[in-house]
Amino acid sequence: MSTNPSEPAAGTTRMAIEIGEQPRALADTLAELLPMRPAVRRIAAGRRHLRFVARGSSDNACVYARYLSEVHARMPAVLAAPSVSTLYRAPLDLSDTVVVAVSQSGSTQEIVEALEWARAGGAATLAITNVEGSPLAAAADLALVTQAGPELAVPATKSYTTQVAALAVLVDALAPEPGTLDAGFAAVPEQAAAMVAVEGTDALAQRLAATQEVLASGRGLAFGTTLEVALKLEETCLRPVRGLSYADLKHGPIAIVDHDLVTVLVAAPSGPTLPGLVELAATLRATGSPVLGIGGDPAFRDACDLTLPGPSLSEELAPLVLAIPAQLTVERLARRLGLDPDAPRGLRKVTQTD
Amino acid sequence: MSTNPSEPAAGTTRMAIEIGEQPRALADTLAELLPMRPAVRRIAAGRRHLRFVARGSSDNACVYARYLSEVHARMPAVLAAPSVSTLYRAPLDLSDTVVVAVSQSGSTQEIVEALEWARAGGAATLAITNVEGSPLAAAADLALVTQAGPELAVPATKSYTTQVAALAVLVDALAPEPGTLDAGFAAVPEQAAAMVAVEGTDALAQRLAATQEVLASGRGLAFGTTLEVALKLEETCLRPVRGLSYADLKHGPIAIVDHDLVTVLVAAPSGPTLPGLVELAATLRATGSPVLGIGGDPAFRDACDLTLPGPSLSEELAPLVLAIPAQLTVERLARRLGLDPDAPRGLRKVTQTD
Repeated sequence: MSTNPSEPAAGTTRMAIEIGEQPRALADTLAELLPMRPAVRRIAAGRRHLRFVARGSSDNACVYARYLSEVHARMPAVLAAPSVSTLYRAPLDLSDTVVVAVSQSGSTQEIVEALEWARAGGAATLAITNVEGSPLAAAADLALVTQAGPELAVPATKSYTTQVAALAVLVDALAPEPGTLDAGFAAVPEQAAAMVAVEGTDALAQRLAATQEVLASGRGLAFGTTLEVALKLEETCLRPVRGLSYADLKHGPIAIVDHDLVTVLVAAPSGPTLPGLVELAATLRATGSPVLGIGGDPAFRDACDLTLPGPSLSEELAPLVLAIPAQLTVERLARRLGLDPDAPRGLRKVTQTD
Repeated sequence: MSTNPSEPAAGTTRMAIEIGEQPRALADTLAELLPMRPAVRRIAAGRRHLRFVARGSSDNACVYARYLSEVHARMPAVLAAPSVSTLYRAPLDLSDTVVVAVSQSGSTQEIVEALEWARAGGAATLAITNVEGSPLAAAADLALVTQAGPELAVPATKSYTTQVAALAVLVDALAPEPGTLDAGFAAVPEQAAAMVAVEGTDALAQRLAATQEVLASGRGLAFGTTLEVALKLEETCLRPVRGLSYADLKHGPIAIVDHDLVTVLVAAPSGPTLPGLVELAATLRATGSPVLGIGGDPAFRDACDLTLPGPSLSEELAPLVLAIPAQLTVERLARRLGLDPDAPRGLRKVTQTD
């Protein structure tokens, strides 16, 4: 299997082990949090807006939650800029708003401060964290604690997908008709297992190892996954990777796409953004840029050069497991490049921003 | 001056001419729009939220407006994802919201549709466009028409800074104490003229010509300018450039910064984000990455390798002209690279997204 003599054996890194734990972590998280929907509804009663606060991978999870809030729960949603609270200390009236702060460790000072500021502004406050009793959990009106278990590799994998699951539960609790996603939630663990067993990641890792420049694109409910795939590729494999929405790509940066650049497209299995992504794949290939596709439907995969399948879930819930094939690819690519996927250069598990 | 025999003479491109027109364009725009503040207030009466809709350079202007809304007007603000309306057709109740759609041409179909969707959801609607009588102007409750005049070069310069000015006027109209920025607004045209005359852009263009990879960073009220500088460098000079917030940079991508990468930091002349940017400049230089600084204060410029001065304006209004030194650098860099700054490869003036 290995083409690099210094490459560790498959499945032996912490990152590989934690990727494999996701079916269990997602099952436990959903079992823990789905019964909390009535409590979420009580806390949010009478509030019309959602405001998400996070950084890094957690922020990518919130990009998904922001689309889901508007598309599924019909609540206007915003990704907050933490500096508005922590540096500018702007006194916003948030009495009509539910603020949701997301942090794996629950110990990122900036996120805790932003939640406390929101509460002072009259917001109802929810925390999503992987650590029960963490400062963030203690500061919120209600904490949704993900059941990923300890995550030792620096790149977030199971902590990310369980955050996405927690956000899906939270937003579904606020939907006009809660529960319409329940059959999908029940299928998530088996779909996560199918993603962990996906074949073909070697071919993608080989193609990515041969390029210095990668661009990731996607749109709508799967766009948060796109950004997470880009961040993971970049921080683990130490090559510049950008995540751009389909539309932002067409408004400028598409000018730089050529055969030196590999594009990764990330797509949900269905939904109104898919036709545009199929067309984008053709446009990108016409410039000579190899297109790697993750997820989508058969027409999408036909339009790409190399692909990995995505889950059999609705567009709303596919993002709970759609990152997994990319996580596998990233772990494999890091080993192929002689890098340690568990401890990328220059990163720590908990980042403090002022 | 020229080191490249094929380089057009300075000041002869459309882009250079339009950069030079900004003191006049900003003066005319402010003269036109400042008296409209009472009308803006009437339309927004009783609304507590702001929602901005735009793409490309106009979206970068809205990033500024979103910070200004929260920091100066104390109104929660969101950058909308147009696909929520145009593809998902989510029926949001926006009866407590002012929606502001921004498009230079006023003809981008997606933006016009998003405004019509917002009005159907009960929003008060404002348009900012450079074209009187355009479809976007016609669709809004009130249109703020910028006075940039026709912009023929594809890269937005005067249309961008006049949009930023229009957004500043609009947000100031909604502030608890309107008018506190008026002395600053009065100084904008002369500060724009000072920026057009800035010296030292040759040295920055020379440094940028020697690298294949650029990262731009900034934070807070000047972050929109950072994103605009990144987009302009990329689309005009055809090299990959990323714009990342200070905090997002520290949460991952800083792992890839090394001596092969040039960092451009963009800073307002004052404000609570400056100390962090001075510290970031030192961190980046320690990795061997050359740091080019635009704006900031003397301590900031001391921390960078090469710098261009910014305006003498408050942090709130500096973004009206802070992009100008970067525009000059980009125009010069394009000519140095033998590219046509007026018509970058692969871009059109009006981009239609579905």
